[in-house]
Order: sequence, then C-alpha cells, then structure tokens
Amino acid sequence: MVNGSRGPGELAPLSREIKLGDRVLLYQDARRKWIAKVEPGRFHTHRGYFELAELVGKEYGGSIRTSMGQNLAVFRPRALDIVESFDRPTQILYPKDIGYALFQLGVGNGDRVLEVGTGSGALTSALARGIAPDGQVFTYEMRPEFLRAAKANVDKAGFGSLVTFHNKDPTEGFDETGVDAVVVDLGDPWRMVRAAYGALVGGGLLAGFTPTINQLEKLAIALREGGFVILEAVELLMREFKTEAGKVRPETRMIGHTAYVTIARKLLPTPEA
Amino acid sequence: MVNGSRGPGELAPLSREIKLGDRVLLYQDARRKWIAKVEPGRFHTHRGYFELAELVGKEYGGSIRTSMGQNLAVFRPRALDIVESFDRPTQILYPKDIGYALFQLGVGNGDRVLEVGTGSGALTSALARGIAPDGQVFTYEMRPEFLRAAKANVDKAGFGSLVTFHNKDPTEGFDETGVDAVVVDLGDPWRMVRAAYGALVGGGLLAGFTPTINQLEKLAIALREGGFVILEAVELLMREFKTEAGKVRPETRMIGHTAYVTIARKLLPTPEA
Amino acid sequence: MVNGSRGPGELAPLSREIKLGDRVLLYQDARRKWIAKVEPGRFHTHRGYFELAELVGKEYGGSIRTSMGQNLAVFRPRALDIVESFDRPTQILYPKDIGYALFQLGVGNGDRVLEVGTGSGALTSALARGIAPDGQVFTYEMRPEFLRAAKANVDKAGFGSLVTFHNKDPTEGFDETGVDAVVVDLGDPWRMVRAAYGALVGGGLLAGFTPTINQLEKLAIALREGGFVILEAVELLMREFKTEAGKVRPETRMIGHTAYVTIARKLLPTPEA
Amino acid sequence: MVNGSRGPGELAPLSREIKLGDRVLLYQDARRKWIAKVEPGRFHTHRGYFELAELVGKEYGGSIRTSMGQNLAVFRPRALDIVESFDRPTQILYPKDIGYALFQLGVGNGDRVLEVGTGSGALTSALARGIAPDGQVFTYEMRPEFLRAAKANVDKAGFGSLVTFHNKDPTEGFDETGVDAVVVDLGDPWRMVRAAYGALVGGGLLAGFTPTINQLEKLAIALREGGFVILEAVELLMREFKTEAGKVRPETRMIGHTAYVTIARKLLPTPEA
Repeated sequence: MVNGSRGPGELAPLSREIKLGDRVLLYQDARRKWIAKVEPGRFHTHRGYFELAELVGKEYGGSIRTSMGQNLAVFRPRALDIVESFDRPTQILYPKDIGYALFQLGVGNGDRVLEVGTGSGALTSALARGIAPDGQVFTYEMRPEFLRAAKANVDKAGFGSLVTFHNKDPTEGFDETGVDAVVVDLGDPWRMVRAAYGALVGGGLLAGFTPTINQLEKLAIALREGGFVILEAVELLMREFKTEAGKVRPETRMIGHTAYVTIARKLLPTPEA
Repeated sequence: MVNGSRGPGELAPLSREIKLGDRVLLYQDARRKWIAKVEPGRFHTHRGYFELAELVGKEYGGSIRTSMGQNLAVFRPRALDIVESFDRPTQILYPKDIGYALFQLGVGNGDRVLEVGTGSGALTSALARGIAPDGQVFTYEMRPEFLRAAKANVDKAGFGSLVTFHNKDPTEGFDETGVDAVVVDLGDPWRMVRAAYGALVGGGLLAGFTPTINQLEKLAIALREGGFVILEAVELLMREFKTEAGKVRPETRMIGHTAYVTIARKLLPTPEA
Repeated sequence: MVNGSRGPGELAPLSREIKLGDRVLLYQDARRKWIAKVEPGRFHTHRGYFELAELVGKEYGGSIRTSMGQNLAVFRPRALDIVESFDRPTQILYPKDIGYALFQLGVGNGDRVLEVGTGSGALTSALARGIAPDGQVFTYEMRPEFLRAAKANVDKAGFGSLVTFHNKDPTEGFDETGVDAVVVDLGDPWRMVRAAYGALVGGGLLAGFTPTINQLEKLAIALREGGFVILEAVELLMREFKTEAGKVRPETRMIGHTAYVTIARKLLPTPEA
Repeated sequence: MVNGSRGPGELAPLSREIKLGDRVLLYQDARRKWIAKVEPGRFHTHRGYFELAELVGKEYGGSIRTSMGQNLAVFRPRALDIVESFDRPTQILYPKDIGYALFQLGVGNGDRVLEVGTGSGALTSALARGIAPDGQVFTYEMRPEFLRAAKANVDKAGFGSLVTFHNKDPTEGFDETGVDAVVVDLGDPWRMVRAAYGALVGGGLLAGFTPTINQLEKLAIALREGGFVILEAVELLMREFKTEAGKVRPETRMIGHTAYVTIARKLLPTPEA
C-alpha cells in the first residue's frame, strides 16, 4: 500500500497528491535519498535547496528542482524507506534476510507474531506490515531505552496500532500463547527456545537470525532438543549490479555477511502408545 | 495466516484441528514432504502407509506413524508449501527472489498489483497473499493452457477471489490503470515497459526477473528510456547449511543462479518550465 | 610445460608430435573428455571409435574424427587433466582451492614442501609441479593402500622423482626439518600443528584445508597457540558461466562448498629480554 | 622459494639470516604490513620505530620490538608480498584470480608464456615465478611509462632475467611463436585473439581477464570464431573469515567482483578430407 489506495495499518492519508504533513522520500540516487516532512521551511542538499511547501498539491512520483538546478524525485516512501531512516545502533538484518524470513514464515493478514529483541523496530515494522490489518505483533525488549526508541520508530512508520510492546526479560517466558510465528533476533537465541515452544501453536514457525556460526550451531542444537523440526538454515549473499549499457558488471564491493537465517516448526509431542 | 487464526484470502477453515477435506503437509524431511487431502483412502510412502482419515480430529503440528513405523509430521501447509506442489514446467523464481521482490515492492494489504506472465501461478499466489484481504492482483498470460493451469493452482492455494486473470497479449497494453506495482516475469520484459508505465501510478514500483545478463541489460536500458528510475539490480545467492553439532558446514551443492531482480519506480514527466 | 618445450619433472618427451606411448587428452566438451594412452587398439566413445595409432605423427592441438563423425580435439594433457583422471575416493580440493593455496604459499622452484595426508596424490602432484625442477615434496600418509595408489598416480603424472613418500603416522612428527612450507589436508589438522612447527624454517608457511567450520575453528586455535601467525582464513566460491552470445548467464548449479583454506606463518619465539 | 633454499629466478641470497640489503616483510597484522630494505636508518610505524640495521644477523621469522613496545614479525617476503607493494594505478587481478589462472594454464618450469597488457608487472612477476628457472615471459605494453614502472617492479621482485619487455601495440601481432600460453589482461581482449592464435603452439592455452559481462561475451565470441575451444569461463568469489574462538563468521565486507576468467585452448584447423 505504497502508492494510491486505501488501507488500514498504512501511511495515511493515501491520496495521489502530496499534502501538508506527509512524509516524502526525496530521491537523488541510490546513495543520496532522504525522508522529509512536508511543512514550512527549506530542505537543503549539497546541490541547493527548495521550499518544502512547494510540494503541496503535486502528484507523487514527480520531481522538484533545487535552487542549484538539481532534480529530486519525490516518492511516497515505502515502509522499507522509513525503516532505513531509523536511528539504528547496529544493523544486522538487511532486506534480503527480512524478505526471505517473512516469506518462509508465511506471515500474512491476521497472524499473531511474537518478536524477541525489538531492537530499533525495523523488523517489528516489517512484521506489522505483513500481518495487517487483522493481525498483531507482540515484541519483547529488555532495555527500556531501546523499547522507547523502537516504539517511536514503529509509530513513525504508521504501524503503532498493530504492535504490543513488552519491556520484559524474554527468558522468563512470554505473555502470549497460541501465536503463529516467533522471530528471534538476539545474541543468545538458544535461551529463548523453550519459551518460544510454549508460546507457539502446534506447527507454529520460528525464524532465528544469528551472525556467527557458533550461534547458529547452538541455536540448531537447542531447537532439535526443544521439540522443533529445522526446515532449513541458510545464508543469503546479495550482489548489486551496475547496469550501464555495454558495461554491465557486479559492483566491486558487497556485503559479505549479515546473519544466518534458521527456519523451524514446532512439533507436538508424540502421545505414548 | 498459517496456523490457527481466521482470515480472508486464506486456507479456510482455520481451526487447530484437522478436518475432513483439509489439505495437510506431511513432512518426513527436507526432501521428502507431500501435500495430501484428508479423505478416505491410504497415503503411501516408501516407508509404509496410513489411513488419511485417522488424521481427523488431531491437532496440527503432531505426527502420524506409518505401517512401517515411520513418523511423519502433519503441518498446516504454508502458501509456500502449496505453491511448491504446483506442476511447473520450469522454475525460475525461488523463495529468495520472490521474498526479496515482495519486500522491495512494499506490497501490502489493499495494493493493486499487476503481473505480466502468470506462468504456473506461483508468484501470483505470493502476490495475492501480500495484498490480502483488500487488494487485487491482475495477471496477464498469452497461453490459454498456462492460464487454465495457473487458475486451478491459485484456487488450490486459496487465493482465487483476490486474482483477476487476463488471457491477453501484454504488449498490447493492460486494462488497469493506477496500479501500485507491476511484476514482470517474461523472457522479453523490455517489451512491456511502455505498457507498465501506462498502468502505474506516479512513483509506482516495478520488479523484473531476468535469467540472463543480456536480458538484464536490455530491461535496464528500456526502463531508463521509458521514464523509470532504477533503484537497484541485484542477484541473490543462497547457501544451505548442515547444522549437525560439531560438523557445521555449507552444503556441497547449491543453486548458483536463478534470475537477476531489477527494482524501479515510475517517474512522472517534468513539466516544461 | 604443457605444450612444446623441454623440461625436467615433466611429461617427457615434449615434441609437438604425438608419439606412441604418449598420454593424450581427448576432448569433446567440458563434460566429455578422456585421458588415453597412444597404443594399438581402438578408443570408443558413445559417438563412435577410432584407432589410437592413427594419432602418431599428428601435431598436438588437432582433432580426430570417430567412425560416427564426431570430432575430438587431441591435446597434450595438463597436470590438472591427469590429476582429474585419478581414482579418488572423495574429492575435497578443487582447482580453485589448490591454485589459491599454491599462490599464497609462494611455492616455487627449489622449495622443500611437506604434505600431510597424501590422499590420492592430486595435491602432491600440484606441489611437485610447483617446486620443479630443483625442489622436493615430502608426503605422509598412514593408510598403506592410499599411499600405493597415490604413488602410482604421481608417477603417472610424471612427478615421481620429485616426491618422497612416507607411510607414517604424522602425529609422531616428521623426518624433515627446515622445510619451506607445510600443507595439511586431513580431518584433524590441529593435531599436526606442533609437528608442522618443528619441521618448518622460521617464517615458513602452512596451508590447511578444512571442510567444516568446527575444524576451521580448532585449527585456528591450535595455530595461534602453537606459535603461528594466521595470515588469513578464506573460502572461495566459483561460478561457471554460459557464454553463448546473447544468452550469457551463470550456470544454474554450482559447487557451494569445498573447504576453508587457512594460511599461516611460523613465528620464532621472542627471546627473553 | 621463500624461506631458506637456493634457487635461480628468486630473491637471492637465501640464507636464513637477515643480511644488509635484504628486503624484509614487517608484519603487524593483515592490514598493517610493510616491505622494508635493511639499511642504515629508522623504520617508523604509528606505534614507534626501530633501527633497521638491528635486523642484521637475526633469523627470518622472528620479531622486532619498536620503541613503543610493538612487536613486528620479520618475514622473508613472498613474491606476492612484493607485488602487493607495487604502485598500481588500478587493481583488477587478485590472488584468487591469478592463482586460479596459473593453475589452469598449467604454467610450469620451462614454459614460454606471452602476456598482453603488462600493467604494473604484478601478473608478469607471478608468471615469471611459475616458469622459473628455465622458461621465459614475453610481455607487451603500449604505454612506455607503464612499461618502465613494470620493469622496475619486476626487477624489484627478482624476476628481471626471466622477462622480455616489448613496448609495442599488441594488435599488430607478437614477435614470438610457438609459445605455450598467452595471458590477456586488457580492456579489449577480443582484438588480440587472432595474434594470440598465431603465437601459440597447437593446443596452447589462453587466459583472459575481463571485468564486465559485455567484455566476457565479446571475448568468448572472438575465441570461438578464432579457432579456440573455451574450456571454461568462471568468476571466483572469496570471503575472509574471522576465526576468533566462539565467534567464527565471515567478514562483513568482501570484494564482490574483480574479473571473469576465461580459459581456452588453440585448436589446429581440421585438414580437408
């Protein structure tokens, strides 16, 4: 729901025209892009400025010219663009990992999803978008200052009503039961396996993100011992390409590693014969 | 909506108990898994059989034992599992590519998405799941026999009411306008760029999948000449890991290539000064 | 020394003409190629046969036509081609790994190199080629039947005079000292680290190949504790490309993992102040 | 021939003791390492200095302590280390590519190898090392200032006597015939294919390095039309690992692309029937 229709759990209001108070994506190129709020005042780039209020009444998808003649495209931001603009102390998860995990979890409208490790709220927002409009995300974070920042971020992305925030030690267990999926993004995910098992419905899905191989190994052991079936453990490598005609080639540098992604399902105990 | 809640555009009915007529996922391991319909009759594996009706009334996430003592987990299938069971003449797109594209497109509830090249209906189903319950997918396919098979597949996956099928040559243009996103999965995607531009709202997103570098290059040229901004062109490599304790390592073999994924946005023409 | 010059430690005799007794590479395509000895008798393919003696007096690099009209290129085999034809119970090391390790070790003419784990003799041959004509390879293998097969292979590749074979448990230490490099290709390479340290000159190089991450970790720990500086630990991924004009793309399948390669140098103890 | 033996075509003299005039590798860690000449004067690091002459008489592989207490390992440089210290306007080729190509070409003692595009002399040095002591490298470079710098570099690496430098336009053909291998590292390698064919013996090998896919495609077309058999076209991806115990993982960043490597063999024309 990025461009022009209605929708609960979304960046309102969704007319095709830019309105005062909208958050817009100003796009020069892949490295130079900004989220800005449409309100009185100037927006400055290193290639000149323009008055933000000039955008009001224009159609999304057009462009604006700065005082120095630089064109900037003016797009309605995707959730992804807003999330990219969050203050994040560290980034582990990238779109490649989040997109893959959401697809593997089969997260969809109406699902109840539990997240352990709210962090900056980036993954929280992606999950909220996935379960909109009828589902709910329950997210746990021990550090109150992280939780506060994440809540502000999730509100900014327009998903506040879909998320319940818990400031609580997740190793002590979760308040919810019968959830469809659990997503774990913490340094010691193996310590949450028992609580995750308790919170999930039979067959419920779990996704774990682990930067090191040692963490992957410990998580896999805990999952197998804790009643889960591991569907897969994978890593995703993404390469960007230059696409200039006659000079097509991968970029020289790439991100070589973010995290291993483990997908598992809860298996109910076999009744005694 | 995989495990236990209600939901429009989903595999109904979603009780936790297996009912007559349900489609279930029988899971032995990553290579041996099957979708079966719960109805009178036996389900045979190379490790014995069981009566499908025995499943009725059991909880999803448990297991069943065959006549030869093999345990099979009985899961509610994800859309992904059902899609994997489709007859597909060729597979180009993998979960890594689909998950990434859906996330980059920002597809969410209420979106109107246009697909060019219905194929087997696998991507169609993933898109339908993404825009449920309030959006709509419009899909174009020239070959009537492909369209028929895709329609049956999408119905089987439970997304029939969210998809409009067109048996039409996409180079002649599309019936819809003002759509939020266009997804192109055809051998000559550059030929659809003009029509895609016409169908999209300002700032609307396009994703193209191209197996060869030459196709990627032609698509990129057509997009730039056709009024689009290319956000990125990427390839994703996925490696599976063995996670046995003390013997962690990537699998020896992997899929080395599926398709390049190009993400672009429609830019409205700059008005004359 | 593949094509036409003289050279010690090489497939003799190196005229440009094929002679009776030569081993030749018959090449149809990347998947269909064979090493054959030029002697009376027929060579059969699934596309016809030819008389091997017909090759005598022809120039290397030409082709021969079978009874069914199939052309086969007739090349002088590289050491690599002969090694590929070895009977190998398991293959871990690939050209990408061997080529990289040889280059990092800086193996060159005159070097004395110690190999732990002779295996099939494939790496032994590559090392021998590298140190020819004035160096020597010392190789250790506990299993007599492997050593016998490896010796036959190395002789076949023409490097017999450059290699000393030891049928001995390498954890008991090595007979040689002052060697320039040690190459370890065994399941428990950390057990050889102390003996390798003893055999190497100051600053001498070590390369270890380990298929699992757990082995890599143990080897790295043992090297650091055993007086080595680890220069790097890497993995190499190789993708083959289809290069048909207008249809350039990576092959669908690739080898996803062979072994991690660790390169280290022996550091002499710091004298007490 | 890095550590302690004699050897033609090598860094002489090869005693185990450091002598006045030697070039040594001072190694702090993977990112901080330097080549220095042992002569009167101080060597400065950001962690203190030491007198270079103090090294005389010490054994290679030991360490030296700076005025601020930083230990530096003192190694005999590999050819690779010296090459890394060359001034290079641009680096395309990495050890992974060079090591692989040398191994695939089967370059060994006594070979006559022709290089097109001398560049900085890095690949020239690697080739010279491979064909030592009895072979010869013939290298072509049009730009006189590059040729001068490359010659100085190759001399510094100790391979001057093994290399013949030509300041000549390679499209006009080569002076040598009957060479065992040709290596092409230029922006338009397809223009050299005819000349390379003329210089090679029957079955002689060619390696081409091309950064873009378009170059790879053009080279492949020219090779097939020019009488070569393409053995393979590949790309190599290398990932470095952190190996700290309990925290093993790939480095976050990696080089995503250098060049595609194409390996081909010259096929002699089939005589008319």
